[in-house]
Amino acid sequence: MYSYQAPRRDMQFVIHEVLGCAQALAKMGRSEVDHDTINAIMEEGAKFAEGVLSPLNAEGDQTPAYWDNGVVRVPDSFKTAHQQFCSGGWSGIGADPQYGGQGLPIQARVATDEMFVSAAMAWRMCTGLTDGAMQTLISHGSAEQIQGTVPHLVSGVWTGTMCLTEPHSGTDLGLMRTRAAVDTQSPGQYRISGTKIYISWGEHELSENIVHLVLAKLPDSPAGTRGISLFLVPKKIDGQANGVRCLSVEHKMGIHGSPTCVMQFDEAKATLIGQVNGGLACMFTMMNHARLGVGLQGLGLSERAWQAASQYARDRLQGRSMTQAALPGTSADPIIVHPDVRRMLLTLRSLTEGSRLLLYYVYQLQDRELSGDSAPESTRAGEWVAFLVPIVKAFLTDSAMETTSLAIQVHGGAGFIRATGVEQYLRDAKITAIYEGTNGIQALDLVGRKLAANGGRILQSLLLELGQVLQAPCPPSLQPLATRLAELLQEWQALSVHLLQAAATNPDELGAAGADYLAFCGYTLLAWSWLRAGLVAEAALQSGQEPEFYAGKVAVARFYAQRLLPRTLAHAAAVRAGAASMMDPAGLAG
Amino acid sequence: MYSYQAPRRDMQFVIHEVLGCAQALAKMGRSEVDHDTINAIMEEGAKFAEGVLSPLNAEGDQTPAYWDNGVVRVPDSFKTAHQQFCSGGWSGIGADPQYGGQGLPIQARVATDEMFVSAAMAWRMCTGLTDGAMQTLISHGSAEQIQGTVPHLVSGVWTGTMCLTEPHSGTDLGLMRTRAAVDTQSPGQYRISGTKIYISWGEHELSENIVHLVLAKLPDSPAGTRGISLFLVPKKIDGQANGVRCLSVEHKMGIHGSPTCVMQFDEAKATLIGQVNGGLACMFTMMNHARLGVGLQGLGLSERAWQAASQYARDRLQGRSMTQAALPGTSADPIIVHPDVRRMLLTLRSLTEGSRLLLYYVYQLQDRELSGDSAPESTRAGEWVAFLVPIVKAFLTDSAMETTSLAIQVHGGAGFIRATGVEQYLRDAKITAIYEGTNGIQALDLVGRKLAANGGRILQSLLLELGQVLQAPCPPSLQPLATRLAELLQEWQALSVHLLQAAATNPDELGAAGADYLAFCGYTLLAWSWLRAGLVAEAALQSGQEPEFYAGKVAVARFYAQRLLPRTLAHAAAVRAGAASMMDPAGLAG
Repeated sequence: MYSYQAPRRDMQFVIHEVLGCAQALAKMGRSEVDHDTINAIMEEGAKFAEGVLSPLNAEGDQTPAYWDNGVVRVPDSFKTAHQQFCSGGWSGIGADPQYGGQGLPIQARVATDEMFVSAAMAWRMCTGLTDGAMQTLISHGSAEQIQGTVPHLVSGVWTGTMCLTEPHSGTDLGLMRTRAAVDTQSPGQYRISGTKIYISWGEHELSENIVHLVLAKLPDSPAGTRGISLFLVPKKIDGQANGVRCLSVEHKMGIHGSPTCVMQFDEAKATLIGQVNGGLACMFTMMNHARLGVGLQGLGLSERAWQAASQYARDRLQGRSMTQAALPGTSADPIIVHPDVRRMLLTLRSLTEGSRLLLYYVYQLQDRELSGDSAPESTRAGEWVAFLVPIVKAFLTDSAMETTSLAIQVHGGAGFIRATGVEQYLRDAKITAIYEGTNGIQALDLVGRKLAANGGRILQSLLLELGQVLQAPCPPSLQPLATRLAELLQEWQALSVHLLQAAATNPDELGAAGADYLAFCGYTLLAWSWLRAGLVAEAALQSGQEPEFYAGKVAVARFYAQRLLPRTLAHAAAVRAGAASMMDPAGLAG
Repeated sequence: MYSYQAPRRDMQFVIHEVLGCAQALAKMGRSEVDHDTINAIMEEGAKFAEGVLSPLNAEGDQTPAYWDNGVVRVPDSFKTAHQQFCSGGWSGIGADPQYGGQGLPIQARVATDEMFVSAAMAWRMCTGLTDGAMQTLISHGSAEQIQGTVPHLVSGVWTGTMCLTEPHSGTDLGLMRTRAAVDTQSPGQYRISGTKIYISWGEHELSENIVHLVLAKLPDSPAGTRGISLFLVPKKIDGQANGVRCLSVEHKMGIHGSPTCVMQFDEAKATLIGQVNGGLACMFTMMNHARLGVGLQGLGLSERAWQAASQYARDRLQGRSMTQAALPGTSADPIIVHPDVRRMLLTLRSLTEGSRLLLYYVYQLQDRELSGDSAPESTRAGEWVAFLVPIVKAFLTDSAMETTSLAIQVHGGAGFIRATGVEQYLRDAKITAIYEGTNGIQALDLVGRKLAANGGRILQSLLLELGQVLQAPCPPSLQPLATRLAELLQEWQALSVHLLQAAATNPDELGAAGADYLAFCGYTLLAWSWLRAGLVAEAALQSGQEPEFYAGKVAVARFYAQRLLPRTLAHAAAVRAGAASMMDPAGLAG
C-alpha cells in the first residue's frame, strides 16, 4: 500500500515557472496572493493530504459505504477528516469572503485540490460536489437562498449534491420524470416527487444538513430539456426532516468510499433556483465546474499511479540490464533499467505531468474569465475555457485509464493483488470516463457545440495563442518537438475545416469523428504544454540551477514527442476516414 | 447480469468457411473429424457453456475463493460443474486415446475451449492448467510418471498446476530459491522445500488429487536459469498427504473464483521430470501452451464484452438519431443509432472477431505442427506458431483490456455498477496481460528471440504466406484494405530490418521497440485476417446466401481498415524513434 507524497516541486514548476501564476494574479489586482503565499498554501495542503487524507484512500476502498436502515455509513475517519478539513478553512478557500470564505483564486489553490483528489478521491468527492452546488447557488440562486445556504456550505457544516440522473434518463435529460408542483399551502414553495439515481454523497452523516440541487419538471412545461427546472431541496428544514430519503447505496467497481445513492423524493419541500424551465442553464454552471473537476480527478489518479509505479520499479530487483549491470554486487538490477519498463514509466510520467501542465493552464484561464472585468482578454479566456473543458475532461480521464493500467502492469503479478493498492486506482479511474457526461458526450460537445460556435472563431484565436510558443528561440534538444507542433497546429486547423464541411451535409459526421478529434486535440495540447515546459527547463539549465530536475523535464518532453505524439497520426487518419463505415447498417444489423 | 450465448454461427464461419478446418484435417489423415462432427462438438460445448458454466462467472466473482484453515473453498457449483465436465468427456477431449482421451485435434475443439473461457474463465483455469500439466508430462515425463498421472488427469479425478513464481523471483527465474534434494531413503526420489506464490488452483477440493509441476534447484547446480530442474509433486501419494500445503489465498482485482495460492513445500516427496537442470526447457512446453491459452482468454472476454455491449445498445433508449428517428413512436431511440456508440461497438466487434480469426488460424497451424510427420510444411508451421505465440498472447489480451473497458463505457453509469456484470470482465481481463509472462516479456520474446532466429528467415516465410491473400481477385469493397495490407507487409519487413540493424550496435533497441513492434504486428495480422474473412463473405454474397450475415462481415472489415488500422502509423513511428529518449538517464533520475 503506497502512501501519497504531494509532488511539491513539480507543482511549483508548473505554477511559478511555466505559468507565472503570481505575476498573472498581480495583473488581476491580486498581488497579495504572491509566490510565497501560494507556496505556503501548498505546503499546508500537502501536510493535510499526506497526513490525514492519504490513509483514507485504501480504507474507503476496503470498507465500502453502505446503507443501514436509511442511514449511510462510511468509515469514522472520513468524518474526522471532514471536520479537520473544515476547521482548517479548506471548505471555504475559494468562496467569497462575504460568505465567510477566503476568496482565493483558482490558480492559487489548484495544487491543493489536486493533492486532495490524489490522496483520497472518494472522500474528496463530497466537498468537491459541495463546491459545485455552492457556485451554482451563488450564480443562480435568490438572495434568500444564498444567505440561507452558502455560509453553511462554506463552513462545511452543510454539504451539497447534484441530482440529475433517473433510471430511464441519463444523458437524455429530456426523458426526466421527477415532478415539481406548486406548494398550495406555502406561496413561492414547491413540492418534489420522484426517484434519482447515482447521487454521490446523497446521504451521509459527515455534515449536519445536505442541500440537494434537483432537476424536475413542472406541470405544463414543454417536453424535453426545455421543460426542466432546478430546485433546492434541503435534507432538513429548521432541523426537521424533509421528504427525501436514501433508498439504497450501489455496489460499484470503484470509489467504494463514496456512497452512490438512490434518492427518493416524496412531496419534498423545495424552492426554485433561477427561472421556471431554466434548469438546464443553471445546471451547466455546475457541469462546467464539475467537468474540470473530473479532469482533475484523472490527473490526481495518474499522479498516484506514477508514484507507485516509479517507486516499485526502483525497488524491485529482477533481471539484468542488457548493457551494464546497475547493481553489480547484487543478484539482480532494479527493473527500472529495462527499456520496456522505462517505456511504461515515461508514458506514465509524460501523461501525468503533461495533464498537470494543461489543466493548470485552463484553471489560470478560468481565473481570468472570472476576474469580473469586461476586458476582451477575459471574454476570450472564457471562450477558450469553454472549448477546452470537454478536452480536459475526456483526455485526462482516458489518460488516467492508461496510466493506472500501466501502473498495475509495472508491478506484474503484485499489481493484481488488492493489498498492493494499485489496482484500486484503475477501478476508481473508470468512473471518471463516465460521470459528468461520458467521454463520448464530451466529444460531441467539443465538435457539435464548441468547435462550430461562431464559425470556428474560438478555435482560430486559440490556435494563434498556442502558436506563440513557436516564436521563441528553440534549443536543438526541443527542435523536433517544435517542428512537429507547428505541423500539428496546421493539421488541427485543416482537420476542423474538413470536419465542419463534412458535417454540413451529414450531421452524423460530427459524432463519428468526435472521439478521435478530441484525442488529436489532447495529444497536440500536451505537445504544446511540454514544449512550454521544456523551454523553461532549458533556460534554467543554462543558469546551472538544479540540473537533475530540469534535465528530467527536457528528457520527458523529448520522450513524449518521439513515442506518444505519433498517436496523433492514427487519430487524424480516423477523423478523415469519415462516418460511412460506422453508419453502414450492415455492421451492426441483427 | 448477462448470460453467455455461444456465437455458433461466427465460429462456424471462421472454422469452416475461412479456415476450412475439415479439409485441413482430412489432409492430415483425420477425415473422420469432418464438418458435421466439428459442428456436433460445438453444439454440445455450447449447451454446457450456456447451461452449466455461464452462471458460475458472476457467482465466482461475488463469492471469492477463500482459505479456511488449510482448506480452500470455492462455490459448490464449481465442483458440480467440474464433475459434469469430466463425465461429459471434456477433460480428455484432446488427449491421446491410449490415456483414455478422445484425441481430437485442436481446430476441432478450439471453439468449445473459447466457450468455456467466455462462460466462466475463473472456473476454466483449473482444467486449462491441468491440460498444460498433462502435455508437459507427456512430452518430458518418464513412462512411469505418465502412466501414473496422465490417465487421472484425462478423467479429471486429478488436476494439475504449474509452480514457478516465488516472492523475489517472477520474470527472473534465475533468482529461484526453492530447493530439491536427493531423497536418501528412496532412490530416484527427491525432496522439495520452498515457497511458491501465485499458484492458480494450487489447492481446492474439485478433484481427488493435485499434481504440482514445480521448478526447483538441486544442490551444486549452476547459478541462474541453467540450474533449474522440474519436479512432479503430488498433493497425495497413495492417498497419504505429501509435504505440501496452501498457506493462504490472495485477494485480487479479478478472477475471484480462481484460488491464487501461496504454496509451501516442506520436504515434499517428488520425482524429476526430464533431465537434471533441464527444467526450463520442460517449462517452455507448458508456457507455449499456456500463452496461447491466455490469448484465448483475451478473446473469450472480448466476446463476452461485445455481447453485453451490443445487447445494451439495442435495448437502452436515450436520445435521438441525428438523421432519422429509429423509433418515431417512442420517447427515444436505442443508443445504437448514435455514431460514437457505433464506433465503440464496431471497435469491440472488429477486435473480437479479428482476434478469433487470428487465434483459430494459429491453432490450425499448431495441429499441423503436432501432426507427427516430418514434412517441411509441419516444421514451417511450428516455426510460425513460435513466432506468433507472443503476438497472440499480448495483442489479444491488450485488446481485451480495450474491449472490456469499452463495454463498460457503452453502459454509461450502469457499467460501473457491479450487478450489471460488465465491470467484472475488465477486472478479470487485467491479469491476462500479466500472467504467463507479462506482455512486456512477450514483446521481448518476439523481437529478441523469435524475430532474430535464423536471421529473420521465419518472418520472411511468414510474410510470403500472408501475402498470398493479395493474389486473389479483390472486390472494390475490400480494395482499400488490400492496398493498405500490401503496404503494411512491406513496412513490417522494413521495420524488422531497421530494428535488427539498430540492435546490432545497441541491445536496448530491442526492448525499447518491442511493445510497439508487437502491436504493429498484431494490427497488421488482424488486417490480413479481416481481408481473408471479407473475401469469403463477398464470395458468399455473390451466391445470395444469408445476405445480412455476410454483409456484416464485409462492413466490419471495412470499419477495421478505416478506423483501427491507422494505429499502425503510431506504432511504426514509435519503433523508428529508437531507444535514445527512453534510455536517457535524465528522464527517470532521482
